[in-house]
Amino acid sequence: MNVGVAGLGLIGGSLALALRTRHHITGFDIDPKTRDAARAAGIEVVGALEALLPADAVIVATPMEAVVPTLAALAPVAGAALLLDVSSVRAPVERFAASAPAGCRLVGLHPMAGRSGSGFGAASAELLEHRPFLIVPTARSDSAAMALAGALARDAGGEVTVCSAAQHDRIVAVLSGLPLAFASALALAGAGTVDGNLGALSGPGFGDSTRLALTPPGLGSTMLLANAQNVREALERARRVLDEVDRAIAAGDAAALSAILERAAQARRSLS
Amino acid sequence: MNVGVAGLGLIGGSLALALRTRHHITGFDIDPKTRDAARAAGIEVVGALEALLPADAVIVATPMEAVVPTLAALAPVAGAALLLDVSSVRAPVERFAASAPAGCRLVGLHPMAGRSGSGFGAASAELLEHRPFLIVPTARSDSAAMALAGALARDAGGEVTVCSAAQHDRIVAVLSGLPLAFASALALAGAGTVDGNLGALSGPGFGDSTRLALTPPGLGSTMLLANAQNVREALERARRVLDEVDRAIAAGDAAALSAILERAAQARRSLS
Repeated sequence: MNVGVAGLGLIGGSLALALRTRHHITGFDIDPKTRDAARAAGIEVVGALEALLPADAVIVATPMEAVVPTLAALAPVAGAALLLDVSSVRAPVERFAASAPAGCRLVGLHPMAGRSGSGFGAASAELLEHRPFLIVPTARSDSAAMALAGALARDAGGEVTVCSAAQHDRIVAVLSGLPLAFASALALAGAGTVDGNLGALSGPGFGDSTRLALTPPGLGSTMLLANAQNVREALERARRVLDEVDRAIAAGDAAALSAILERAAQARRSLS
Repeated sequence: MNVGVAGLGLIGGSLALALRTRHHITGFDIDPKTRDAARAAGIEVVGALEALLPADAVIVATPMEAVVPTLAALAPVAGAALLLDVSSVRAPVERFAASAPAGCRLVGLHPMAGRSGSGFGAASAELLEHRPFLIVPTARSDSAAMALAGALARDAGGEVTVCSAAQHDRIVAVLSGLPLAFASALALAGAGTVDGNLGALSGPGFGDSTRLALTPPGLGSTMLLANAQNVREALERARRVLDEVDRAIAAGDAAALSAILERAAQARRSLS
């Protein structure tokens, strides 16, 4: 198939690199340096968003705040091309789809993958291998569009799961948003206690627990705010557990504390 | 030197394996199966705690609740042997040292190392390589004892840092206790949202953030309770950051939220 990729950062770049063995890929990025880097990596790059068309599919992989504007620019001229977007918060795309031009077809394709690097320089096909891809229908999805989205996810090396936009946003709030907030709180509490001299003391446990605090602040802030309601509900649930832990410690109640930790260990095992 | 190791679990076993290339090691464990496993790995094992003596040094590496009783059993018969213990909370050992028998010499030797496995089967010399070892003086430490503790830490592959018991316990509360509480809260909030079917969706970020929830509950509970005051203070500091995050999300304040995340990213970088 002819597949366009709009936005060649970590995720878009990785999708272009992963899909090019089976599809004819054309890429576009608003940043000329990123276009040069993608071209140097052998990706066919065009100089304007609309030049990704005509195509069988165009994947929008811009920063989150640019996803809906980019979809809005493509929708009137997309023709038969299926539009897909990797946005990690579905509600804004769902609202856009509800009033999108007639004939426009749109499906969410969200690879649950990441690393602390960003930009095309950090992109690689391996990033997506065996990662879950959430396929999320919109008001402009039909069964052929869903099938095509699933095929592209598998061709990129992913494992397909279909879920609703509401499910998706609840899941992402707890699997991505909440851990970011917690990692940031831990890192700040740690730096407030352990002075520079002792920085080297932090072990692999603390390092793993705080790695997400390295998320670029603009990206993190957008992800939390775009999904505010779900993130706040997840925070509230997690904070209730911290209350329980604090009460058990204050009471010196080893049995209650062990019981919470045992439930948590079971929960962790059920999620991996 | 002749070095005894009392308790051949993850840490004691690793110390025995790491030190045996430079020292004559004798090990003891209360569990006959652990003694057999250590013997099978080539460690000289004795059948009673006191049979570790005479020695130049005895390292107590039992579970935390057995550290002070084991030190109390060894102190009257230790003779010239320096006693060391790996307890990850210093306050109880400090209280013991203050009233220990005259002539008894005692230093804390805490390797900041771990993994989710436990017991001798998970022990290895590599676990300790380049890890920070906190050397903590007690009321029964002299300069020769401190020097010997430092030499053993380096011989085990560690990097030596000396700190007071109070500093140690504050640091451990924030680098180990707090991340355990947070990982447990995240795992429980995650399992409460993402049903079994979707368990595979959790990515490397969520996995890393919750790995410490796999800490054996008894060990975790003991570590939190023995260091209750410091852990509760660390929890309180981290929860204030979560309050800030929640307020910024509720207010839709991208600038405030980005500023918190930026400070957190800087804090994380300063600690690794």
